[in-house]
Amino acid sequence: MSSKFTVSDYREGLLRGNVALLSRAITLIESTRREDKEKAAELIDSILPYSGQSVRVGITGVPGVGKSTFIEAFGMHLLRQQKKLAVLAIDPSSSISKGSILGDKTRMEQLSVQKNAFIRPSASSGSLGGVTYKTYETILLCEAAGFDTILVETVGVGQSETEVSHICDFFLLLMLAGAGDELQGIKRGIMELADGVVITKADGSNSEKAKAARSEYARALHFLPGTASGWMPEVLTCSAYEGTGIEAVADLIGKYCRHQESNGFFREKRVQQNVQAFQRLLQEELRNRLLSRPGFREKVRETEAAIAGGRISPYTALQQLLDA
Amino acid sequence: MSSKFTVSDYREGLLRGNVALLSRAITLIESTRREDKEKAAELIDSILPYSGQSVRVGITGVPGVGKSTFIEAFGMHLLRQQKKLAVLAIDPSSSISKGSILGDKTRMEQLSVQKNAFIRPSASSGSLGGVTYKTYETILLCEAAGFDTILVETVGVGQSETEVSHICDFFLLLMLAGAGDELQGIKRGIMELADGVVITKADGSNSEKAKAARSEYARALHFLPGTASGWMPEVLTCSAYEGTGIEAVADLIGKYCRHQESNGFFREKRVQQNVQAFQRLLQEELRNRLLSRPGFREKVRETEAAIAGGRISPYTALQQLLDA
Repeated sequence: MSSKFTVSDYREGLLRGNVALLSRAITLIESTRREDKEKAAELIDSILPYSGQSVRVGITGVPGVGKSTFIEAFGMHLLRQQKKLAVLAIDPSSSISKGSILGDKTRMEQLSVQKNAFIRPSASSGSLGGVTYKTYETILLCEAAGFDTILVETVGVGQSETEVSHICDFFLLLMLAGAGDELQGIKRGIMELADGVVITKADGSNSEKAKAARSEYARALHFLPGTASGWMPEVLTCSAYEGTGIEAVADLIGKYCRHQESNGFFREKRVQQNVQAFQRLLQEELRNRLLSRPGFREKVRETEAAIAGGRISPYTALQQLLDA
Repeated sequence: MSSKFTVSDYREGLLRGNVALLSRAITLIESTRREDKEKAAELIDSILPYSGQSVRVGITGVPGVGKSTFIEAFGMHLLRQQKKLAVLAIDPSSSISKGSILGDKTRMEQLSVQKNAFIRPSASSGSLGGVTYKTYETILLCEAAGFDTILVETVGVGQSETEVSHICDFFLLLMLAGAGDELQGIKRGIMELADGVVITKADGSNSEKAKAARSEYARALHFLPGTASGWMPEVLTCSAYEGTGIEAVADLIGKYCRHQESNGFFREKRVQQNVQAFQRLLQEELRNRLLSRPGFREKVRETEAAIAGGRISPYTALQQLLDA
C-alpha cells in the first residue's frame, strides 16, 4: 500500500533518486482515492522547488510510424550521453486491464533494463485532460528524482497530440515517407505544433523516398508562418534500425533549447503552460459542479441535441439551462 | 430608440427584406441593456427557422494585404451574379468612438452604395468571444432578411482569425507574395484553418512573384494533412486592381460548397459550430459567476501570478481558490 509512506518519506526518497519510491509516488498521484489525493497534492507542492531541470520532449506519430523503435534507439543514445532518462506516455484509452501503449515493456527491451532509464505506462482512466495533468505531475516527480530528459509518447490520433504539447518543451513529430495515405492519419494542426519532424525508416529501399519526403516537408514548413519564438522547425530523417540520424535529433533538440533559452522563451512557455493548466482545471471543476447537480447532465445533453437540430439558438439554450 | 419596435415588427420587417429594420435589429442585439437583451433573444429565436440559407465566408489577412480592395472587387462580382451580399466584421479593438475596421465606408466606396449590398461595422466592446457571438447573431438576422452571401472580415492578428472560423463555412486567407517578413504577421495555425488561400496584388511587377508564391504555397498545403472533410484547400492569385482572379475565388467557394454538401459536412460543420458556441457561452457564464464574487477577480490574478512564479502547482492553486 502506498499509504504507509509519509509525504516526507516520498520526498526524501525522490531527492535521493530512489526509483522504487518514484514508482510508488507516481502510483499515489494516479490514485483516485480521496486521502491519496490530499497526500499527492502535498507531495507535489513539497517537491515543486526541486522540479523543472529537464528537457521535456513530446513524441507523436501515427500507429506504424515506429515510435517504440525510435524511442529505444533515441533513449539509448541519450544514455550514452550520460543523460538520466524517463519515458512516459499519454494514452487515454489505457486501462488497468488493457494495458497502455507502454504497458508491454518488451517493446523497448534494451532501454527498459538500463540503470538510468525509467519507463512508466500511461496513467489510466479519467478524462484526457485528467490524464495529461497527471502526466505533468509525473514529470515533476521524475525531475525531482534527478531525471534530466523526459520523453512523453502519445499516439497520433484523437486529441492526445495537442494535450502533449501542453506539457512539453519540444514537440517531435514522427512521420512516414510519402504523401497520401500516411498523411491522412495526422490531424490538421499537428504539423504546425511540431518543433521538429523526423521521417522514420530511412533505410534500404525506403532511403530515397525518405530523403525526398524530408526535402518536401522542409519546404512546406518553410512556407508555414514562423513560430512565436522565432524558432524554425527542421525536418530530419532517421533509421532506428540502422542507428542513423538519431544523434541529429538530439542535436536539434539541443539547438532548440539553446535558442529558446537565449530569447527567454523556454521559461515563458512553461509559465504559460502552467497558467493554462490552472485555467483548464478551473474550467473543468466549474463544469463538473454544474453537471453533478441532479438531472443536469441529461439536461445539457438534451440542450445540445436541440441546438444541433436547429430548434434553439445557443444563447437561448444557455438561458434555459441557467433558469433550471 | 430601438425599443419602440416590437419583436413582431422586427421579424416582419426582416422577412420582408427591410434593410433599415435589419440595421436596427442588429443595433438591438448589440445592446448591453437588459431589456434589450431579452427582446434580442426573443427576436433571434423567432427568426431562427428563417436563417441558414447563405454561404458564410470568413476573410482574413495581415494589415496591408489589401482586404478592403479585395472585398470591394469580390463583392461587386457577387452582386453581378445576382447575389444579395452582407459584409460584416470582427474587430474586438473597435469602439464606438474609434470606429471599427469597417467604420469608414469610404474604404469600399462602390460597394457601399449598391442596392443589394449591406455593410455593417464590427460590434464593439465586450470580450472577443462576445463580439464573435453577436456577429453570429447578425449573420442570422441578415439571412432572415434574404442575404445569401455573408462576408465576415477580420484583421489577421490577435485571436480573431480563429474566432471567425467558428462562425463561417469557408475560411479565406489573403496573403502577400514572398516568404519572409510577410509570413511573420500570420500566426501558426491559421494556414491550417484556411479552405482557400489567395495571393493578392498579382499585377504589374509583382505578377511573377505572386505566381511563384502561389506555386510554393500550393505545394506546402499539399504536404499538410488533409482536412477532416476531405476538402483540399487551393491557392489562387488575384489582382483586385486589375479585376483578375476574382471570379476564380467565387468559383472555388462554389466548388467547396458543392463538395461539402455532397458529403454532409456543410451541415455537420454548422451543427458543431452551434454546439461549441453553446459550450463556450456556458464556460464563460460559469467563469463570470465565479469572478463576480467579491474579491475573486483579484484572487484569481494573484493565483495565476503565484503559478507563473513557480511557487504553487496548478492543482493546489485550484484547491486554494475553491476553498475560498
